[in-house]
Amino acid sequence: MQEIYQIDNLDRDILNALMENARTPYAELAKRFAVSAGTIHVRVEKMKQAGIITGTKVQIDSKKLGYDVCCFIGVNLRHARDYPETIKQLTEFEEVVEAYYTTGNYSIFIKVMARSIEHLQDVLINKIQAVEAIQSTETLISLQAPIQRTVMP
Amino acid sequence: MQEIYQIDNLDRDILNALMENARTPYAELAKRFAVSAGTIHVRVEKMKQAGIITGTKVQIDSKKLGYDVCCFIGVNLRHARDYPETIKQLTEFEEVVEAYYTTGNYSIFIKVMARSIEHLQDVLINKIQAVEAIQSTETLISLQAPIQRTVMP
Amino acid sequence: MQEIYQIDNLDRDILNALMENARTPYAELAKRFAVSAGTIHVRVEKMKQAGIITGTKVQIDSKKLGYDVCCFIGVNLRHARDYPETIKQLTEFEEVVEAYYTTGNYSIFIKVMARSIEHLQDVLINKIQAVEAIQSTETLISLQAPIQRTVMP
Amino acid sequence: MQEIYQIDNLDRDILNALMENARTPYAELAKRFAVSAGTIHVRVEKMKQAGIITGTKVQIDSKKLGYDVCCFIGVNLRHARDYPETIKQLTEFEEVVEAYYTTGNYSIFIKVMARSIEHLQDVLINKIQAVEAIQSTETLISLQAPIQRTVMP
Amino acid sequence: MQEIYQIDNLDRDILNALMENARTPYAELAKRFAVSAGTIHVRVEKMKQAGIITGTKVQIDSKKLGYDVCCFIGVNLRHARDYPETIKQLTEFEEVVEAYYTTGNYSIFIKVMARSIEHLQDVLINKIQAVEAIQSTETLISLQAPIQRTVMP
Amino acid sequence: MQEIYQIDNLDRDILNALMENARTPYAELAKRFAVSAGTIHVRVEKMKQAGIITGTKVQIDSKKLGYDVCCFIGVNLRHARDYPETIKQLTEFEEVVEAYYTTGNYSIFIKVMARSIEHLQDVLINKIQAVEAIQSTETLISLQAPIQRTVMP
Amino acid sequence: MQEIYQIDNLDRDILNALMENARTPYAELAKRFAVSAGTIHVRVEKMKQAGIITGTKVQIDSKKLGYDVCCFIGVNLRHARDYPETIKQLTEFEEVVEAYYTTGNYSIFIKVMARSIEHLQDVLINKIQAVEAIQSTETLISLQAPIQRTVMP
Amino acid sequence: MQEIYQIDNLDRDILNALMENARTPYAELAKRFAVSAGTIHVRVEKMKQAGIITGTKVQIDSKKLGYDVCCFIGVNLRHARDYPETIKQLTEFEEVVEAYYTTGNYSIFIKVMARSIEHLQDVLINKIQAVEAIQSTETLISLQAPIQRTVMP
Repeated sequence: MQEIYQIDNLDRDILNALMENARTPYAELAKRFAVSAGTIHVRVEKMKQAGIITGTKVQIDSKKLGYDVCCFIGVNLRHARDYPETIKQLTEFEEVVEAYYTTGNYSIFIKVMARSIEHLQDVLINKIQAVEAIQSTETLISLQAPIQRTVMP
Repeated sequence: MQEIYQIDNLDRDILNALMENARTPYAELAKRFAVSAGTIHVRVEKMKQAGIITGTKVQIDSKKLGYDVCCFIGVNLRHARDYPETIKQLTEFEEVVEAYYTTGNYSIFIKVMARSIEHLQDVLINKIQAVEAIQSTETLISLQAPIQRTVMP
Repeated sequence: MQEIYQIDNLDRDILNALMENARTPYAELAKRFAVSAGTIHVRVEKMKQAGIITGTKVQIDSKKLGYDVCCFIGVNLRHARDYPETIKQLTEFEEVVEAYYTTGNYSIFIKVMARSIEHLQDVLINKIQAVEAIQSTETLISLQAPIQRTVMP
Repeated sequence: MQEIYQIDNLDRDILNALMENARTPYAELAKRFAVSAGTIHVRVEKMKQAGIITGTKVQIDSKKLGYDVCCFIGVNLRHARDYPETIKQLTEFEEVVEAYYTTGNYSIFIKVMARSIEHLQDVLINKIQAVEAIQSTETLISLQAPIQRTVMP
Repeated sequence: MQEIYQIDNLDRDILNALMENARTPYAELAKRFAVSAGTIHVRVEKMKQAGIITGTKVQIDSKKLGYDVCCFIGVNLRHARDYPETIKQLTEFEEVVEAYYTTGNYSIFIKVMARSIEHLQDVLINKIQAVEAIQSTETLISLQAPIQRTVMP
Repeated sequence: MQEIYQIDNLDRDILNALMENARTPYAELAKRFAVSAGTIHVRVEKMKQAGIITGTKVQIDSKKLGYDVCCFIGVNLRHARDYPETIKQLTEFEEVVEAYYTTGNYSIFIKVMARSIEHLQDVLINKIQAVEAIQSTETLISLQAPIQRTVMP
Repeated sequence: MQEIYQIDNLDRDILNALMENARTPYAELAKRFAVSAGTIHVRVEKMKQAGIITGTKVQIDSKKLGYDVCCFIGVNLRHARDYPETIKQLTEFEEVVEAYYTTGNYSIFIKVMARSIEHLQDVLINKIQAVEAIQSTETLISLQAPIQRTVMP
Repeated sequence: MQEIYQIDNLDRDILNALMENARTPYAELAKRFAVSAGTIHVRVEKMKQAGIITGTKVQIDSKKLGYDVCCFIGVNLRHARDYPETIKQLTEFEEVVEAYYTTGNYSIFIKVMARSIEHLQDVLINKIQAVEAIQSTETLISLQAPIQRTVMP
């Protein structure tokens, strides 16, 4: 069982600030939390080494990029043992942005982003349902996504 | 119907690079894409103004922060019209990190992060199921999440 | 039990022609089916009186009018006896174009036309789910409608 | 993305009148809407060219033609990829008057008109279920259809 | 635990004959099974006293009496404890010919005979669904009943 | 469409009496309904010829014969077209006393009588589920059957 | 997080032996595993103090005690928050031998032992379904229980 | 039908005591129930011979042994007749501690104990779902098990 780096309150404050805006200067963080900029630097490095901080990315608004349709698709396989192979094939479809192996009545549960209803139809018929191992799919289209955030450190 | 800024190939390259690592210096991007750093700057600003780039955040590994259990919960309301009020209450529970209003047989579909099976049980019994408008819930625990990425610009 | 006018082959031919194009001149039909124009007239009148022909309408393409989203919604009532009252209320929403009282696991089954995903969301949250008697809804969005025709006379 | 002809209030009035009764003389429409008959003619032609008006058909009462049973049938395929081929086969059965490719838990969703319970049984056993790719069907018989209309232009 | 009269082969033969045709003369049965008519009489009386034979009825063909629609209806109650009261109310509707309290996902499972689709609709809306305790119903219409027989003694 | 013999009130009274007890002497019926015994005879013969009365059978109490378990089994086929063949095979199992081809989510719906839970298990595993075309079954055990009667003539 | 006593191979051997037969003399175990009886005694005491061994019980065959019917019942509550109170009430029914709070589509999942189908019916109608908070139940009767064992230490 | 040893009140008291603690000395039981130790001995032997008492086992706390995840898995087979063979294969997986052949919509219903979510995932993907005959599984994870006891003798 791997060791878990126990973050303290300062780590938590730094994380929250960087999860809000990763470009906040360390000097500003230092001032805000009443420590030296060096301390901020040390803590961030420790959290990177512990694998807690895994990178820094710009956030994009997928609707502004033209992705109007967000949906979840429950996938049922012809045979439960086809799971590993099916994941490989789904990974090749860029519209499949998340995939989960869950308890419950779907074999695989995926999140798909499409530009329009027509695009979704194309992804479903010509990509996902063309996968040999997939027996059926059930699509839940998201009409609204009122909560979108990450865990509190 | 609002206007959509049509990104070109250079915008796409810049976005991809920054979605990979938001801290990449503009000078490096300029060199990589054979344009001036000023061009990079202009393009990034344009995409910010168009609302395509919405921020820069550090990415964290929720498992390293001790969140071992990720699950999706289908929520059925006692009455369909209680949807707006229920979203307000769910927003107060920090473990609820995503919420969707979807077609299909759940009133609301949420994603919950918990530290352990015991924590999930506590969130379900003492938080989510204590909401007056919620009649029942169905929980799909994610055992594995083999695909986690964002849309391609 | 009401009497049913038994149509013959000539009636059938006339009906098929008018269901294709209601503006076809009777003279043309008379020539095509080798009878007098008067006969065509008599037959059409008889089918009108028998209630077989109920009118003549222009056909419109709802997508061209901006209705991009066609869906079926299974409606479950809080109480089965609320059916008659609920139909009255659904009739007031112009987006509800068809309603059925069916066997199976929905109380009412309706067809809804909306201009966009956002419009559908608005119709669902602010109209349909605001109806007191409706407990829950399940939406099937039509991604494609490859067959659309009427019964053969 | 194709251009959509934006109809104005006069177009809307004309459409509503013709969707009510396609045989209304243009002179009457002209008088009713206080424009010249020529204007009515121009507008109708424009809406035909824009593909909004697709034809004129007599409306028939299928019950009067002896079709007593109207039902919806959810079709599940043995394999999701058989969708295009199955639609071809269903098109050959005249009792199948509508077919939809929908999200949700059916592969295909069809509307079937039959003359009687016995006729429906024959269509199900000897036509629809005889299709190689169809694994199972679920039939919702319509007992009443209190709303039947089209979208408002 | 009550005692069960153990029928022997002769009893079984007699029962089978009378379940086929209750009017078969005892003399004929006696000849057929090579016993005296008195023996037949004694055995039939014993089976009546044991409660095995409960009566003699003419069999009718319900279709010939105009009952064209046979269906099973799964009934869900608003509250499980309303079961005894609901049975009382269902007993008052002559179209409800059988009722079962079963394991599985319905509260009560009933068999209904109706003269037509319209009659079934009337029974559902104005009788069954008007019962206060009934929350929802799911109807399975029988299209064909290829096996109809009783247990072998 | 076949002609239906329209029974009158006297026919109805006679039928009700014979459905109660088929051995009631015609003389008694004649007295009860204030007609001649000959009239009773004529009416019964007419109803036999019309196929309304199909026979006379002794009624048995299946519990007294040791059949303690009554259940309904929803049968799903591997392929919808296997329906006719499967009915043939089910007919060979004497425990299957009724079979229906119904709308809804089962391919076939059957009623099974078994002597005990162990007997039911044997019938399910070694008979029903051994049928090649049957993919799965779902069993509803009847715990109580509070209504058991036939249609009113 | 509490400390877990890490059992070694000797502990495991002792546990397996005592889970097979708790009355095995320590002397025999000592001989079998080539250690002193004192060592056996020390290890058993340690596992008791660690809470691994919680007691010693005779095993009974519930069928021999007359419990013929074993079933699982999925319980749906009128309101998710009634869970704690409902568990208290279920605890008072001796036929409810296990209860689980599970993910999935039941509020509570219980195991019930009954003496007969009649007894089960009585427990369902007069005990479980009489609980105010219970909306509906779904019963799975166990026809056979081919695997019954405990975890391997 | 096998004979059932009818236990009396003394047997019941002895059973209850031994089901609480199998190591209670007979002398203590004798004193508690005001009979001789010999009587206790005789009764216990009789109940062993009748198969009511089947053994004596130490009870263990599976959580203390590191089994954190308890779940029920509904198993659907590709073909109902594969049941006997599948049970054989499931028996080889030590994590499968119980298996039931039940009425309802699963082919087989099993209880699985796993050390962690990861372990459960491994058991599902690499053991259970690797079984040729298994088409799909549905997992209900137990979050709490508030009632765990045995039948009252």
